Order: sequence, then structure tokens, then C-alpha cells
Amino acid sequence: MNEVIQVIRQHRSIRKFKNIPLTGEQIEAIIDAAQMAPTSAHMQPFSIIGVTDQELLKKIAARSENPWIEECGYFFIFCADLHRMMLAAAPDQQEKMGANLNFSYFYQTAVLSSALALQNANLAAESMGLGAVIIGGITGALPELDQWLELPDFVIPLVGLAVGVPDEFPEQKPRLPRSAVFFENQYNHDLKAQVQRYDREIEEYYGARTNNKQKASWSGKFIAMLDKDLPLGGYTEYVRSKGFDLK
Amino acid sequence: MNEVIQVIRQHRSIRKFKNIPLTGEQIEAIIDAAQMAPTSAHMQPFSIIGVTDQELLKKIAARSENPWIEECGYFFIFCADLHRMMLAAAPDQQEKMGANLNFSYFYQTAVLSSALALQNANLAAESMGLGAVIIGGITGALPELDQWLELPDFVIPLVGLAVGVPDEFPEQKPRLPRSAVFFENQYNHDLKAQVQRYDREIEEYYGARTNNKQKASWSGKFIAMLDKDLPLGGYTEYVRSKGFDLK
Repeated sequence: MNEVIQVIRQHRSIRKFKNIPLTGEQIEAIIDAAQMAPTSAHMQPFSIIGVTDQELLKKIAARSENPWIEECGYFFIFCADLHRMMLAAAPDQQEKMGANLNFSYFYQTAVLSSALALQNANLAAESMGLGAVIIGGITGALPELDQWLELPDFVIPLVGLAVGVPDEFPEQKPRLPRSAVFFENQYNHDLKAQVQRYDREIEEYYGARTNNKQKASWSGKFIAMLDKDLPLGGYTEYVRSKGFDLK
Repeated sequence: MNEVIQVIRQHRSIRKFKNIPLTGEQIEAIIDAAQMAPTSAHMQPFSIIGVTDQELLKKIAARSENPWIEECGYFFIFCADLHRMMLAAAPDQQEKMGANLNFSYFYQTAVLSSALALQNANLAAESMGLGAVIIGGITGALPELDQWLELPDFVIPLVGLAVGVPDEFPEQKPRLPRSAVFFENQYNHDLKAQVQRYDREIEEYYGARTNNKQKASWSGKFIAMLDKDLPLGGYTEYVRSKGFDLK
């Protein structure tokens, strides 16, 4: 097994870090790795904001309900960015371009390309012996985060990446069986029994693991999450307010 | 520089393949790598469809206007998948869950997590000496692709990944300068001059490269792409038809 596949297979999200800041070289290696990801039409539709201001970190951590943001060695925010590619256009061109970016297709493309860059960053960090965790909770800091980082239209913070020297070595979560995720030529419509077996496996894993034991199955977590009224309309409103109408 | 960062930095999209099919071991290593990516709440919201049926490949290639689909060693389609996690729920729970998945937040989460898996797959392929190219053009085969692959609601094909033994070694496209992509604490609102310098660099690159010479700047390509009427509303209609209302 080559070193790349080894690093990929050893992945675990790290949520406990030693109190050691990243070096400038580590930060640059992570950003350069992100920039080497392929992107649709070479659009490079992402920006990375490093948060070093302690007051700002505290505010983001509190609103995200996420202590790792303050405790890691460096905190990156990955943003979808379709602003930069319009800068050299004339004002009337920018207007027309912005109207086209209202199509959900471009929003999807920007999110997808940003995530390719993010995973390069994540693996680059892991390959240097660092640990990392992707933090979706930063959406809890919207829309203010947007003002704090002074983000223009067509730039949306997607997730954070907290990186640092690991101070834990958690178990790996079992994945869905390959046969429930990979199909040839046609989707398999007979997956329920496989999912239920996996539910039992995850239940055992959560009940037996060292940290954060809990009684939950895989499906059970999503039923608990989604079988109730969720107040998420504000997120779409926010996305629309940044110029992405999802039309 | 470690092997992971080396593979990341050597990336180029490969669009010319030797006529050699992938081995079963290679295919499994690529899928297993995809499955090891982190995903929001361990949702694993993606499915991978390998297309081996020659008739199906031909149809997808034609509709995507993409010959590499037929010429590579193996063709994967990466789908966002929020269907599987509802399978163990009772019918009334499924209904409530589906209503919540209408929020654009979940659509974004599924796209982002699918792309993390995709980049793991891409790098795993590259680490084994294979080449790959991500193919956004499969959206040209929608909505029929959906029927051909028998995809249920809440499953959307995002992009293809054509993998094979490389039969070319193209130049690397220059990236945006790091200072135009990475900022500390605040977005830089004074990027226009940097973008214009980069436009000249890309113009030189396109004019000098061995294959597919063209006269275009970076910004110029997006102005040409977006400063006209685009018929992309159908894509959003398709997304909505699969259960993602983007509300």
C-alpha cells in the first residue's frame, strides 16, 4: 500500500490538540496543496481565510458551539468564491455574469470545487503528522461571520478546518459496507437489510468506544436529527443574500 | 516533501488513456479511499456508480460530449445520496425527513461531502500511477442518466471520474497566486491588479502549451462563458424533481 493510500486509510478526525501553533511552512504547505486540486474550468472558486485574531476566534467558536476552533494550532475557513473571477469584467458584464451565477448549477460547482481543495488541505495536514477536523458548525456564526471576515457577494463560508498537533488517537468509525455505496450500472434498490446490519455495527461501535459513548444507530441519528421541525430556512436566505438565488 | 504532498503537487488532469482496463484491486482501492473521507455527521451521503455497460457508456459519452468517458480504464459516477440514510425509518418519519432535506443546507452538505470522497478517489488513483479527470459534463446527460442508472429520489449524479493508464503528460496550469486566494482575518478587497497579472500569465500559458493552444485569459474565459444567456434553469428543475427543493 503506498503512502498516499495509507494516509487516506488512517484518517480520523482529531478534536484534541496540543497547544502548539502551526509553523508558517506547515500553513503554506496546506494552502498550496489546496490550490493544486482540480476545479471546474480552472475556476478555482474558493478562498481560504486563516483566523489568527484571538477575539475573532473566540466569537466564531462561541457561535459555532465548537471549542476546537480556539484550541487548534491554526484555524482555516474555506469559502466558495465566485467573486474573484468577475473582478476584471466591465460593470455591465459583471451584472450579466452575476445573473447567471444565480443558477444553482454554479453554486453547486463552487461548493464541489471548494471541497476538493479542502480535502487536499486535510490530507496535506495529515501527511505531515498533524490532525484536523472539518467544522460545519461555523454556519452557526452566520450571517455575522460574513461581516467579521468582510466577505463580498458571491463568497460564502462553507466549513472550517481546525488543524493542530494531535493529542488523541481515536478509534476509526466503521464505514458503510462497500456494497451499499458502490454499484455497477444501476443503483441497488434493495439496501434496507444492509443498512440495518450497519446500524447494529455502529450501535456496537458507539457503545464500546473509549470516548463519547452513546446509544445510537446510524439511521437512528438521522431520524433523530430530521424527524422534527428544523429552522434552516435562514441558511437559504443567507445564501440568496450573497447573490446565489438558486434559480 | 512527503509522498502525499508530492502526489498532490504533481496533479494534472489526464484526458488521454492507454487502452488498459483497471484491475479489480485498483477499483476497490479507489472506492475504499473514497469511503475513508470525513463526512458531515458521518452521513456518508454519496454513492459511486461504476459504468461498465458499453451501450450505457456510449450514451453517457455522447450526451456529455466527452469522449474520455469511453476511452478510460474505468468510469465512475459520483452521486450525492441522502436516500440511503432514510431507508430504516418508518414511512411517516421518511416523509418528515424528506421535508427537511428540502433545505438547501442539506443539499450543500451532501455535495460537499461527496466531493471530499471524490478527491480521495482521485488521489488514490494518482498515487497508483493512474491518471484521472473529473467530468462535469455528465449533467448534459440529465435527466435521462437518472433513469439509465435507476437513481431514486434524493440521489443526484454530480460528476464523473474517468480513470486510466495515462497516455500523456500535460503541463500544469499555473494557479492563482497564493495571496489572491488566502487571507488572514479579512478578505482582501483589492485583488483586481493581482487577477489582471494572473490573466496575463494564463494567456501566456494557453498560448505556449503543447496541446490545445488558445488565446484566452483566466477572467476572459469566464466573461465569455457568463456574459450571455445561459439555459441552466433546467438543472435546478432537475435537482428539485429529485426531492431537493432548495427551500
